[in-house]
Amino acid sequence: MDFGYDARTEELRQQLLAFMDEFVYPAEPVFARQRAEADDPWSPPPVVAELKAEARKRGLWNLFLPGENGAGLTNLQYAPLAEITGRSPHLAPPALNCAAPDTGNMEVLNEFGTQEQRKAWLEPLLAGEIRSAFAMTEPDVASSDATNIETRIERVGDEYVINGRKWYISGAMNPDCRIFIVMGKTDPTADRHRQQSMVLVPRDTPGVEVRRGMRVFGYDDGDHGGHAEVVFHDVRVPVANLVGEEGGGFAIAQARLGPGRIHHCMRLIGMAERGVELMCRRAVARTAFGKPIAAQGVVREWIAEARVEIEQLRLLVLKTAWLMDTVGNRGAHTEIQAIKIATPAAVQRILDRAIQVHGAGGVSQDFPLAELWAAARTLRLADGPDEVHKRSLARRELRQYV
Amino acid sequence: MDFGYDARTEELRQQLLAFMDEFVYPAEPVFARQRAEADDPWSPPPVVAELKAEARKRGLWNLFLPGENGAGLTNLQYAPLAEITGRSPHLAPPALNCAAPDTGNMEVLNEFGTQEQRKAWLEPLLAGEIRSAFAMTEPDVASSDATNIETRIERVGDEYVINGRKWYISGAMNPDCRIFIVMGKTDPTADRHRQQSMVLVPRDTPGVEVRRGMRVFGYDDGDHGGHAEVVFHDVRVPVANLVGEEGGGFAIAQARLGPGRIHHCMRLIGMAERGVELMCRRAVARTAFGKPIAAQGVVREWIAEARVEIEQLRLLVLKTAWLMDTVGNRGAHTEIQAIKIATPAAVQRILDRAIQVHGAGGVSQDFPLAELWAAARTLRLADGPDEVHKRSLARRELRQYV
Amino acid sequence: MDFGYDARTEELRQQLLAFMDEFVYPAEPVFARQRAEADDPWSPPPVVAELKAEARKRGLWNLFLPGENGAGLTNLQYAPLAEITGRSPHLAPPALNCAAPDTGNMEVLNEFGTQEQRKAWLEPLLAGEIRSAFAMTEPDVASSDATNIETRIERVGDEYVINGRKWYISGAMNPDCRIFIVMGKTDPTADRHRQQSMVLVPRDTPGVEVRRGMRVFGYDDGDHGGHAEVVFHDVRVPVANLVGEEGGGFAIAQARLGPGRIHHCMRLIGMAERGVELMCRRAVARTAFGKPIAAQGVVREWIAEARVEIEQLRLLVLKTAWLMDTVGNRGAHTEIQAIKIATPAAVQRILDRAIQVHGAGGVSQDFPLAELWAAARTLRLADGPDEVHKRSLARRELRQYV
Amino acid sequence: MDFGYDARTEELRQQLLAFMDEFVYPAEPVFARQRAEADDPWSPPPVVAELKAEARKRGLWNLFLPGENGAGLTNLQYAPLAEITGRSPHLAPPALNCAAPDTGNMEVLNEFGTQEQRKAWLEPLLAGEIRSAFAMTEPDVASSDATNIETRIERVGDEYVINGRKWYISGAMNPDCRIFIVMGKTDPTADRHRQQSMVLVPRDTPGVEVRRGMRVFGYDDGDHGGHAEVVFHDVRVPVANLVGEEGGGFAIAQARLGPGRIHHCMRLIGMAERGVELMCRRAVARTAFGKPIAAQGVVREWIAEARVEIEQLRLLVLKTAWLMDTVGNRGAHTEIQAIKIATPAAVQRILDRAIQVHGAGGVSQDFPLAELWAAARTLRLADGPDEVHKRSLARRELRQYV
Repeated sequence: MDFGYDARTEELRQQLLAFMDEFVYPAEPVFARQRAEADDPWSPPPVVAELKAEARKRGLWNLFLPGENGAGLTNLQYAPLAEITGRSPHLAPPALNCAAPDTGNMEVLNEFGTQEQRKAWLEPLLAGEIRSAFAMTEPDVASSDATNIETRIERVGDEYVINGRKWYISGAMNPDCRIFIVMGKTDPTADRHRQQSMVLVPRDTPGVEVRRGMRVFGYDDGDHGGHAEVVFHDVRVPVANLVGEEGGGFAIAQARLGPGRIHHCMRLIGMAERGVELMCRRAVARTAFGKPIAAQGVVREWIAEARVEIEQLRLLVLKTAWLMDTVGNRGAHTEIQAIKIATPAAVQRILDRAIQVHGAGGVSQDFPLAELWAAARTLRLADGPDEVHKRSLARRELRQYV
Repeated sequence: MDFGYDARTEELRQQLLAFMDEFVYPAEPVFARQRAEADDPWSPPPVVAELKAEARKRGLWNLFLPGENGAGLTNLQYAPLAEITGRSPHLAPPALNCAAPDTGNMEVLNEFGTQEQRKAWLEPLLAGEIRSAFAMTEPDVASSDATNIETRIERVGDEYVINGRKWYISGAMNPDCRIFIVMGKTDPTADRHRQQSMVLVPRDTPGVEVRRGMRVFGYDDGDHGGHAEVVFHDVRVPVANLVGEEGGGFAIAQARLGPGRIHHCMRLIGMAERGVELMCRRAVARTAFGKPIAAQGVVREWIAEARVEIEQLRLLVLKTAWLMDTVGNRGAHTEIQAIKIATPAAVQRILDRAIQVHGAGGVSQDFPLAELWAAARTLRLADGPDEVHKRSLARRELRQYV
Repeated sequence: MDFGYDARTEELRQQLLAFMDEFVYPAEPVFARQRAEADDPWSPPPVVAELKAEARKRGLWNLFLPGENGAGLTNLQYAPLAEITGRSPHLAPPALNCAAPDTGNMEVLNEFGTQEQRKAWLEPLLAGEIRSAFAMTEPDVASSDATNIETRIERVGDEYVINGRKWYISGAMNPDCRIFIVMGKTDPTADRHRQQSMVLVPRDTPGVEVRRGMRVFGYDDGDHGGHAEVVFHDVRVPVANLVGEEGGGFAIAQARLGPGRIHHCMRLIGMAERGVELMCRRAVARTAFGKPIAAQGVVREWIAEARVEIEQLRLLVLKTAWLMDTVGNRGAHTEIQAIKIATPAAVQRILDRAIQVHGAGGVSQDFPLAELWAAARTLRLADGPDEVHKRSLARRELRQYV
Repeated sequence: MDFGYDARTEELRQQLLAFMDEFVYPAEPVFARQRAEADDPWSPPPVVAELKAEARKRGLWNLFLPGENGAGLTNLQYAPLAEITGRSPHLAPPALNCAAPDTGNMEVLNEFGTQEQRKAWLEPLLAGEIRSAFAMTEPDVASSDATNIETRIERVGDEYVINGRKWYISGAMNPDCRIFIVMGKTDPTADRHRQQSMVLVPRDTPGVEVRRGMRVFGYDDGDHGGHAEVVFHDVRVPVANLVGEEGGGFAIAQARLGPGRIHHCMRLIGMAERGVELMCRRAVARTAFGKPIAAQGVVREWIAEARVEIEQLRLLVLKTAWLMDTVGNRGAHTEIQAIKIATPAAVQRILDRAIQVHGAGGVSQDFPLAELWAAARTLRLADGPDEVHKRSLARRELRQYV
């Protein structure tokens, strides 16, 4: 259980920290301006492409992906790097080609894709030339229970015919998002966890209607392609577009979610660190009732509690990464649930307090806090609400006493 | 300490409930559509004007204003009515000409305005023909301590010359917002609470720059005129535009805030009721893991806690209203602080849980919950952050033991 | 919904406040000393009898009991008086013959007792000559679900034969506790809520074994007779000892619990007030790190939050009392649950913070805080755990949407 | 940052787990019985001596003490062992001669004691033949600020003359507690942190009055010698009894507290694990309203949250131990504060919920939960209240932004 940073990690950390200081943070105001003035609200502002080029040149690229197709890092090596990218979550992850949902989609294609699928979609994704989406959540059912999914994928001859409605399909509003991995039911009569399959649906397939961008507390998240409502009307794709095997959709989803969840948690910790930094800077700089806000006991309590929580979260995330590396994602199941339960809730609270210290500025577009908060809050729902994870974790805990 | 609804209140409640059912709730989807399709993001959608006409016809008009210029209700009579309008806070309060910040501004003009000022601005406001703004908060200082305010109002001959920068000036992006009440310092050398004055500044005065709309989380609140950053560059108004007396600004602000805070709290309770209703409806309608969400113990706990909290908040608001009516706003100072401390925080928590029950829908534009939440959260900052009120209330409590 | 104190209440309040100042508070150190030095740990120290005599002389007696047998107060009249007694909960309630469980037992006998039962037991209880116990909770089942109760009451000829084990039978260690009201099953085959009956069992009946005193966080509560484990071995009582009718036990228990719960909540508010007073006094008197503790922001926040919570709790309790008076206990069912949910939890938190302000003294016997805390904490379990009440209240809330 | 258990730790863990199963848990009911029946309430029940003998025989002895006088373990090696002892905190720590306050006192004597002092007191302490006390806290001042301490240690010729009043001197009621380390002021005119010194005062020195046992909630903690109020009336000891140097008391106290705090946190984690185990066992075994309590969503949420919190606490404690081993106690200052802030509060909450699941049994003497809770609660005060640690930690965090 050694969480120390090895030489490779430390080297990459230094390179990434330098990249953040030299390129990412200075790009933030540019990004905000470009976003405000953009004609197309659903594409990343141009500065993102510049950052990507620079990051790739520096070898800060595809760090999330283990194995030879990616940077080949372990989860434990990637964790402190992902944390750093979380400090500027709109710029750093896409700059490094490490942004969700592409990361999870690349993992799926890397692990389950055929040679042809990988050539067609994984390669341009790894090159950062296109974006992708993962179409699972549906508005009409509680998607936290994946067996509820109602989208139909019917085999007709050499094709699959897809009908259904999805929403919160992140990234799908972006015209550069070329490929959707769609989860649906191929066999509603099979066993509960064998009814689902995944198929690849190119964006321009007839019948694909990208209907509108869903909001998250008022934000459209247009800079990373928004969150689309997508309707599939008799969409036909060749059977070769099946990912993995028929009936394997649930298992692939589970395989995809483990790394996805830990990546979110890693970045959330970076977001919390950003929040604490901003909170401290503001508390030191601003005066009310005759003394700096930093002298107020309540604010000090918030800062201390934030520090103590972050330290605990980071260690649990590192342990989880280490477990995933050593005993596999399945062996780290409970710990992945634990960080999913603990991290968004704690980071949300930290950011809420950072907002409070900023007064009206805290809820505004002039500080990143409100938008970070919305992201953290949403992660208490995304990939399964807290309550589902808690119930499942408790069931496992109780099992030893029955 | 009788909080019962008298005959007049009960009659108005029935009329208002009918108006909500027949006009307001049906207008909500219309409003959302008009908002999404509006050319001008900073004006109320047309349906609001229709609702105003109907409400006025029915005598549901200016209910907030005591005395002969308004409906003549007491705070205790108005409280249950304001609560009902909080159930649809984007539509009902403006429909009844009872929306902030106009309400507070009308109170100020009614109480402190000269004959001319009332004729010029109060009358059209009471008629719902124009809107108004209250320019106090500044980006560069902790405005919770009003003595920090830096905007300068200098008397030069028969004019006041105003220089300063304000933000979060609610309603000011709306072109129909014709008049600003501006708080600034006329005498920085006077006693701490006698340095400030208020002057009336028509929107079209040269030097008034309405710079941009501030966001609240991702919302621009354009339908009620947004929250503007406004810069005053050598803005000149005649001395007749002074509200009350020179040096009286702080006192007027205090006088304005009492009713403003209780109105917010009344509406917040209606927002919480809306949240509980939506939470219950969703919990009953949606199934996960084989049973309705309403059967889950955690959700039941949330519903129960919400009900218990709402009951307590409502009683405290009613008591505060009763006190304001019987011993005056100053006599109700502690209670006004108490509801300001208790209500937004509790309602925020209730709405957060209602969001959680709705899954992704909860943070979306398809349900009002996320936007209601943002409003409640912001009220933990607006009119003074929680911490300032708590400190002040505690000081008063401690005083009896020193 | 008028919660004001009428003339009779105000008069009694003044008398009671004077009694507290002149007799009860001065008796507290005497009581502590007598308790520490007592030979019999299970009887009230002698000073209690003196207080009883004085209170009775002053007409401060049986205030809890409506109707002609008691003081004839409504719940709304009694509430502020009970609150005052809660400020010294070990002395004032017994001094006024208003201590649980006697109050509930007197109510049961008053409402359901036969002429003979009332003569034998109610009269001496009303006179404060004997004490009584209510034997419902059992160690072997979840007694929050009263249908779980396993004690058997079998009719054999003209007698009931009782077998079973009870615990946390408050007051029963006191030798002056002469009569037990015992709940058990007379007909395990009847409908779920018609299986139970109550019978009167004099303490000296053969087969009654008062086994030991149960603790509450280390406290034996010996001054009010402790909390006994009582075993009934073939205990025989005449059928005339039945309270009410056979199968009526559940209904009587429900009838008894409503007033019992509100009395607890009234007193809890007085306990919280005592806690706030002590917290403030300590904060003012004690210095750390160069300034009085009262100057620390965190302590001020605690004081403010306590004040705000107490105001809300009191109003909800008053409303509940008013409802019980106007629509009856059944009509006030939801509100009784609400105060049972809200009050102990909030008061526990307030007392916890008062303890924290007192440092080690807070957990000691030199201040009443730790013992008050234990009482508040226990009331989150007694008369049904919070969770049971929340679930039930939520079910009722949800019912309107099904 | 390797937290894995090395071979020595793993071997000791297995031995300790076996000792717990074979000797400690079976001794718990014996201990409870002996405690209830003890003539002397202030001495450990006889079964403790038997456990000590067995533990010593097995080499499970003085594990806390690094270096050659103890077991020579690092903090990281000791942590998982101390955690295990926390599962039975009344029996296991004294059985292994690893109970506070002796541990801290042995550390002080080991590090700062003279040859003679070590021979006289450290040797019998290491052999488990006597007990000791640490007399720092005073009732009359906020002792969290050690500079407040008022006990006077005056040098008169070859002697120190001690006058002052201490309380909550743990262990001091035990007649086997032979030696007190007393903190007081030798030079009130020196620099703030150089006024204090520590001297050794044998229990039988004339003028030492062990006045009474202080309570913790209702517990007297008699089995480990209670918490005494001790008054020093002109107590004279030779100057050779000075520990370290004059004016060094504050520094020694600081040195003593670091390990003391982490030991408490280690054991608290074991207490929390015991609480979770009991909570799960009860939830599985008990039925209410037709299903086992373990099927209730709220209880599952509690179990999950407990597990997630414990995992985080343990990792932070391990990191802190590792830091103490690698960069020293001073370098681990912030982390020691962090665990002191995080652990008691979280464990208190876990135990509170375990109590709730147990109903009345939870607050009783039949389960260890209420007593464990009282210990955890008290550790939010002992060695400095949470608030002091938070303020200090925040100050350090803020320092980098000033």
